[in-house]
Amino acid sequence: MTVLEQMGKNAKEAARGLAPAGALKNKALYAMAQALEDGEAEILAANAQDLKAAGENGMSESLLDRLTLNSTRIKAMADGIRSVAAQTDPIGTIVGGGVRPNGLKIEQVRVPLGVIGIIYEARPNVTADAAALCLKAGNAVILRGGKEAIRSNTRITEILRAAVEQTGLPKDSIQLVEDTSRASSVEMMQLTGLIDVLIPRGGRGLIQSVVQNSRVPVIETGSGNCHVYVDDTADIEMAANIIFNAKTSRPSVCNAIETVLVHRDIAEKALPAIKARLDEKKVEIRGCERTREILGADVIPAVEEDWATEYLDYILAVKVVDGIDDAIDHIARYSSGHSEAIITKSYENAQKFTAQVDSAAVYVNASTRFTDGGEFGLGAEIGISTQKLHARGPMGVNELTSTKFIISGSGQIR
Amino acid sequence: MTVLEQMGKNAKEAARGLAPAGALKNKALYAMAQALEDGEAEILAANAQDLKAAGENGMSESLLDRLTLNSTRIKAMADGIRSVAAQTDPIGTIVGGGVRPNGLKIEQVRVPLGVIGIIYEARPNVTADAAALCLKAGNAVILRGGKEAIRSNTRITEILRAAVEQTGLPKDSIQLVEDTSRASSVEMMQLTGLIDVLIPRGGRGLIQSVVQNSRVPVIETGSGNCHVYVDDTADIEMAANIIFNAKTSRPSVCNAIETVLVHRDIAEKALPAIKARLDEKKVEIRGCERTREILGADVIPAVEEDWATEYLDYILAVKVVDGIDDAIDHIARYSSGHSEAIITKSYENAQKFTAQVDSAAVYVNASTRFTDGGEFGLGAEIGISTQKLHARGPMGVNELTSTKFIISGSGQIR
Repeated sequence: MTVLEQMGKNAKEAARGLAPAGALKNKALYAMAQALEDGEAEILAANAQDLKAAGENGMSESLLDRLTLNSTRIKAMADGIRSVAAQTDPIGTIVGGGVRPNGLKIEQVRVPLGVIGIIYEARPNVTADAAALCLKAGNAVILRGGKEAIRSNTRITEILRAAVEQTGLPKDSIQLVEDTSRASSVEMMQLTGLIDVLIPRGGRGLIQSVVQNSRVPVIETGSGNCHVYVDDTADIEMAANIIFNAKTSRPSVCNAIETVLVHRDIAEKALPAIKARLDEKKVEIRGCERTREILGADVIPAVEEDWATEYLDYILAVKVVDGIDDAIDHIARYSSGHSEAIITKSYENAQKFTAQVDSAAVYVNASTRFTDGGEFGLGAEIGISTQKLHARGPMGVNELTSTKFIISGSGQIR
Repeated sequence: MTVLEQMGKNAKEAARGLAPAGALKNKALYAMAQALEDGEAEILAANAQDLKAAGENGMSESLLDRLTLNSTRIKAMADGIRSVAAQTDPIGTIVGGGVRPNGLKIEQVRVPLGVIGIIYEARPNVTADAAALCLKAGNAVILRGGKEAIRSNTRITEILRAAVEQTGLPKDSIQLVEDTSRASSVEMMQLTGLIDVLIPRGGRGLIQSVVQNSRVPVIETGSGNCHVYVDDTADIEMAANIIFNAKTSRPSVCNAIETVLVHRDIAEKALPAIKARLDEKKVEIRGCERTREILGADVIPAVEEDWATEYLDYILAVKVVDGIDDAIDHIARYSSGHSEAIITKSYENAQKFTAQVDSAAVYVNASTRFTDGGEFGLGAEIGISTQKLHARGPMGVNELTSTKFIISGSGQIR
């Protein structure tokens, strides 16, 4: 038996202990939060080693920032766990049911998924977030973080496991894969029967690799080629404001926009107003021919590839379209199905856009940046699903569950 | 572009036309049912050719029976489609939502999955069933049936497509893969981005091959290593009755039982009573050592493999266990997670069994044979999911949908 198979078996066993845990799970979560705060010095020491090694390996500033822990961030991790504890426990909820004509009582009940594998990259706070959400929903978790954060992750996991064990729940509810080579994530993708679902969190390369190679069911997260369409009836100031917010408030996240589509009848007025706002943050515009006719030839010409690219940067593709149908077609063709918005005063076009755009979150007159578990009122999120199976959009504790049917009879046969 | 890629694109396009179709879908379904009845002669002619070829290739009696259509079966297919039409349309249902503190109104709305691929074997009635269920939920379907039924399936699909087109919906809502070689199902498993979900229907070999090889998300169906546990407080007559029903009413289906576990304190009385019923249908018993001590040495000794085998035949594995915990452990180890039952008079043990057994359907004092969409009141079913992601247990029209978030604002930014 390989190390990972053994971890899978331990996780299955732990999951059996967690499923009926009820209120003990919250006790464990509060203990985990406290233990992280109490363990701050040890965690920061491990993190300093990670940072030193990363610096020596020439890690970029932005990645170093993601890897860095400090007192505030550890407090935030602990508070995050407490907010998960404060959420409603979905397990045991009766989702539906009734009595059949033959007297059988059928109840559909919410139950844990079982064992969840999380494959992620440099941010050590994912270790605590994911462990807390999985445990809240009664699942055992196998965490496989990036090699850059292995010392931080190891220390955090040890602290969390000890806290879980103290409350009387199985410590193998939370396990960390020590081997951070590619081989370990490949093996996780093959552990059908031991891991019930894999959730990759990180960059597009990581996520696509898991989606393409996993035999274990995967929930695809986080790829966002998001659009704003400015309808001919739009309030131009609102449009510019929303586009500015959706592009520049945090360009590196999946709910930031990458392309703006503008109705040809409003383009001449709207484009200069939009550009004026974007110029405040020196956003690079890549425009179609009609955009360049309006904004000037110093706008970089957009090529086919621009429509499909998730820049995650201060770059925005801009296209003038013939109308709402043209915009909807463009989105159907290029969107990753994450978040899209229409800016309009037209009731009819608002209805049409929300009905026909096939994305996880479709907005009227609001920024796509709201696609987030917290903003939607779902509590902490484990990621944003861009697939249609099982969960779509921000995934909270509920999305980490399954259901089963319980049937109560008195000797019925068929 | 390959034939299948083109079909995938056509299906995507058709799905865009189906999503807002509303009542037109029911019109199409009723037209499909009528067209099948009107086309009986053509369908039977095509089916006769399939049967002739299958006979020449030495197909077994039971497979020939599955392949055979007649007037009654065509009527049943048509009625099946009408019953799907009569079900509530899930699309557009508002699953949840509310207004956030910043004034954003968030609605979670039920939408189609998009494009569904069905890979199945010899039964041509699956063609009509699957097409109807997918269409009802607003999905385009790509059907890939077995080569034995290709003439029947082609004729049925042509008839259904014509009926769909007549009502003004896209005929590519229903497409049949003409190539029945292994290559076509392998290619379907790679069509990520064009097929949203694959559902294999058929024998274990087919299903496992799809689960193991597909890059498209799969819903695993139909594998059932089901158990009945006879508790020490069981009503013996009820136990024997339920076991007889669950084993012999239709041994070839996934909700039939394969193993009976009997509490040691009741074994001496219960086993002979159970065996007496099973003898009526000449069920072969493969027993553990303690079972053979009670029932006699002419009972075939069970080996390890018996506990894991889905016989789908008049064979039953029988094991004496030390109690309910032992039974639950055995089920956790060997069950495929489909359906299990406890026969008991004990409130405590009923609660324990239903809470701790991690299967799609868990019964108290009833036959596992009820695990079925119709019996559960879900209407027609597309299969019984034995996985935990997305859907678990009998899957009806609702399980062929996803959701999306629609967010209505007035200029909100984050």
